[in-house]
Amino acid sequence: MKFSKKQSDILNEIIISRRDIRGNNFTNKKIKRKKLNQILQAGLNAPSVGFSQPWKFIVIEDEAIKNRVYDNFKEEYKSSKKHFKNIPIYETLKLEGIKEAPVNIAVYYKKSKKKILGQTSQKLMGRYSVVCAIQNMWLMARSLNIGIGWVSILKPKKINKILAISKEYELVGYLCVGYPKEFFDTPELETLQWDKKQKFDSVVFWV
Amino acid sequence: MKFSKKQSDILNEIIISRRDIRGNNFTNKKIKRKKLNQILQAGLNAPSVGFSQPWKFIVIEDEAIKNRVYDNFKEEYKSSKKHFKNIPIYETLKLEGIKEAPVNIAVYYKKSKKKILGQTSQKLMGRYSVVCAIQNMWLMARSLNIGIGWVSILKPKKINKILAISKEYELVGYLCVGYPKEFFDTPELETLQWDKKQKFDSVVFWV
Repeated sequence: MKFSKKQSDILNEIIISRRDIRGNNFTNKKIKRKKLNQILQAGLNAPSVGFSQPWKFIVIEDEAIKNRVYDNFKEEYKSSKKHFKNIPIYETLKLEGIKEAPVNIAVYYKKSKKKILGQTSQKLMGRYSVVCAIQNMWLMARSLNIGIGWVSILKPKKINKILAISKEYELVGYLCVGYPKEFFDTPELETLQWDKKQKFDSVVFWV
Repeated sequence: MKFSKKQSDILNEIIISRRDIRGNNFTNKKIKRKKLNQILQAGLNAPSVGFSQPWKFIVIEDEAIKNRVYDNFKEEYKSSKKHFKNIPIYETLKLEGIKEAPVNIAVYYKKSKKKILGQTSQKLMGRYSVVCAIQNMWLMARSLNIGIGWVSILKPKKINKILAISKEYELVGYLCVGYPKEFFDTPELETLQWDKKQKFDSVVFWV
């Protein structure tokens, strides 16, 4: 299959308009099962080291579970604050959307007992495959006008406990999924001047 | 911006027709600088934890450097073989395209001295951001009919040495980039029955 410039431009539009959706920017509009499946299927179609497909996706709609995950966020957030005590804006940031998003998806890496092709020199490769799946999901969601927010201020082992997942699995990403009120033009942390967008020539080098 | 079903379907086509390109499936057709820049720009437009954008891209066209990277592959590959000695097919697999691909890109994670927003509970988050950049690049390349192969049988510290990159940076992905003769319909490792494609219901669970 050969793609045209127009098709490549559409991918570019999806990439540049993808945002990390947070807090009350989520609406409670229900996501149809078909669309949720399309997002998950994009994850299953990601590349993986040695075709190991070392992933597992837990789709969470249960409010009681979301509440327990949120409690863990609060705990981790509280302990994170000491690192940013000189930056007052940190306390005003909305860093998750666990309860506001109608759906959460916990994306797990399955550790392997046997050696994996391509993972003999770099042991993080399996986890990286799971991240490729998440990025596929994020783009697919955006193309369906659905937002995703990746919450990383969580203790993976605690989330395993809440979800009753065995130690064989390691949490890679915890995603809040839902229709947003708005996809902002620029990342919120850029708007808030938390950091500047990096210039091409400051991170790309040629040898 | 609201995307249509047609646009979402195009993204799906790009996702499902992306392949990991290897060995002599690469042609030596030159990649125009403009297209290479589009691929790299897709990386720069990836999400990153706390908007930290902790990446650095080294574009390698120098044959002497590629040869030294290939030497490291050979060494790592040799030592990987002991893990697969009961699987004769392992020795027949083509696991890289370092010299065949006209361009290689080493994608680095920049460790931070200061604490990063969102990286206080999960220290791998910065590396995961770099993987999101790689997956964006892989899809953008595919949409431009350019192939990428991710080579993971390399010793990151050795690659730093070859590229004269300081320890502050850690190699996440080493990519071979070029026009392929063909994008196969199915992953080669699936065709070779190295492993089966996972079924949706075997990895997706609902709570």
